[in-house]
Amino acid sequence: MNKKLGSQTLIFDNVNVKEGFALAGPKEQQGNLGNVFDMCLENDKFGEKSFEKAECKMFKTAIDGVLQKSNTPVNAIDSVLGGDLLNQIVSVSFAMRAYESSFFGLYNACGTFAESLLLGSCLIDGGYKDKVICISGSHFSTAERQYRYPLELGVLRSPVTQWTATGAGASILSNDTTEAVCRITRGIAGRVIDLGIKDVNNMGAAMAPAACDTLTQFFKDTGSSPDDYNKIFTGDLGKLGKKILIDLIKENGFDLSDKLEDCGAMLYTDKQQTYQGGSGAACSALVFNSFILNNFKSGNYKKILLAGTGALLSPLTSFQGESVPCIAHCLEVCK
Amino acid sequence: MNKKLGSQTLIFDNVNVKEGFALAGPKEQQGNLGNVFDMCLENDKFGEKSFEKAECKMFKTAIDGVLQKSNTPVNAIDSVLGGDLLNQIVSVSFAMRAYESSFFGLYNACGTFAESLLLGSCLIDGGYKDKVICISGSHFSTAERQYRYPLELGVLRSPVTQWTATGAGASILSNDTTEAVCRITRGIAGRVIDLGIKDVNNMGAAMAPAACDTLTQFFKDTGSSPDDYNKIFTGDLGKLGKKILIDLIKENGFDLSDKLEDCGAMLYTDKQQTYQGGSGAACSALVFNSFILNNFKSGNYKKILLAGTGALLSPLTSFQGESVPCIAHCLEVCK
Repeated sequence: MNKKLGSQTLIFDNVNVKEGFALAGPKEQQGNLGNVFDMCLENDKFGEKSFEKAECKMFKTAIDGVLQKSNTPVNAIDSVLGGDLLNQIVSVSFAMRAYESSFFGLYNACGTFAESLLLGSCLIDGGYKDKVICISGSHFSTAERQYRYPLELGVLRSPVTQWTATGAGASILSNDTTEAVCRITRGIAGRVIDLGIKDVNNMGAAMAPAACDTLTQFFKDTGSSPDDYNKIFTGDLGKLGKKILIDLIKENGFDLSDKLEDCGAMLYTDKQQTYQGGSGAACSALVFNSFILNNFKSGNYKKILLAGTGALLSPLTSFQGESVPCIAHCLEVCK
Repeated sequence: MNKKLGSQTLIFDNVNVKEGFALAGPKEQQGNLGNVFDMCLENDKFGEKSFEKAECKMFKTAIDGVLQKSNTPVNAIDSVLGGDLLNQIVSVSFAMRAYESSFFGLYNACGTFAESLLLGSCLIDGGYKDKVICISGSHFSTAERQYRYPLELGVLRSPVTQWTATGAGASILSNDTTEAVCRITRGIAGRVIDLGIKDVNNMGAAMAPAACDTLTQFFKDTGSSPDDYNKIFTGDLGKLGKKILIDLIKENGFDLSDKLEDCGAMLYTDKQQTYQGGSGAACSALVFNSFILNNFKSGNYKKILLAGTGALLSPLTSFQGESVPCIAHCLEVCK
């Protein structure tokens, strides 16, 4: 059976999003979406001795949370697909010690949640799995000290930076049509795009061309246009990256100005001084599993796109003078 | 269509391994399999300024190599699935800048190659992709200085250690039955197993229980036994881990003593002083894409199992006192 459309788009006939769970940090609770998350941490140590152990516990809590919220027994989950931003994706890997489901470790930076939905959809739609959990997340304090500076150093931040969100989001995908908040109907995997940006603070500018490439290919493959969607969400381009994407994709003949929302840009209020908004593997996972699913439940949304974006660099590649390769994976989600 | 067998095994009706390519380092050339690799490096800097840039070039060379060897045009490849051991899997991510295929970044440590074959098989068999490349690799000098000690320090090694192999292996999976060296017929994803081993030098002991768990589940799901296979390959348990697996799985009623080969244990000669043999994401990718495929080509093998094993730790988790969670993914490969 051919499930391809155009050059890269995939067609899914039976992928149901049964439920989602969004666990956010304290700063995220004070942001624009504080009232839509399922659970918020009072303290980002989460009762653990280190931020890293707290991040791992967030993954377990999000998995347990989505199981409980959807009344799904843990042994109904065939597999978990996911990743995080820590070296060797240890947060999700260590969390998986507590579960008997099989595990696929993924890494496409902040695009990991979209990657997990895309591969999870193939596993469900193809008949390989009945139910899977797709998960990703990040933690400001673990990411900051791994990718940038010691937290205690108090380095001044550039105005083009984004703030790594603390949170974890988990979705259950199912082949049971009776349990659908919404359905994943099409998807497209992105290719690696690198236009030579070397400013590691300006991830939005680096990632916007990847989002442009994937969305343009999706519109071409499917013959659809931005008008067909209630909203088009990018993962975490931030405010500046969002503007750049609108400009870039206009050159390809698509006007996103009325439709585009960015999961990073919408997360915090201006008063929170995150500059361009949120970033991190938590961003799109948090927004999808709370705000977006809620809008499907309430009937506000009939059809959206979620384009998760990721910057595939490491501190070492930047030290060695490399630019920033980026990727975007996109899902079409329908009522 | 249900493609599940038993509790975790997947059935693939049409996944063909078109060709493989194995690129090895200088030490690997001097080992037991030196004469079966497609290409060997004279110098592990590979003409680059850093070991990390050399590792990235190895990935590109392996992709170009398998395309050329199989006479496959680059634009016939829908997607590349793969990973490596560097933080943020930058070797494969940066290599992918040179290609227009979509990219799925994976990480299950040294089990990444088996993970890529398993997910790649789902994409091909399910009709989502026509041709994909599955790839993983590692580099002794980049891994050593990231995971353990500065190379210049000359730290004495424990006798239970393995040697991170330098190399990259790439396979083309295809839905075209006319181009099959062999076929991937069944597969099983592993769950995360952690029996509390904290000795980060003794990865074989940590990983053997994961291999035991996955192989036992596969034999139960399929009703098959070790007698049904020419050989059963584990990823890189090393010599000690191989012995532990034979003992462990005997308790479950399966005798692997005549059938088991370990990709790590077979890579080096005793004179090369690697102690327990090879490890690293290159091990199973190198052995599968040279030794194993050659034995299918020559008619020696009719049916084998490849169980890729991975230790999902990071230096940080060890510093914070954690034990070593492990995983194994297994593929059944038939003539």
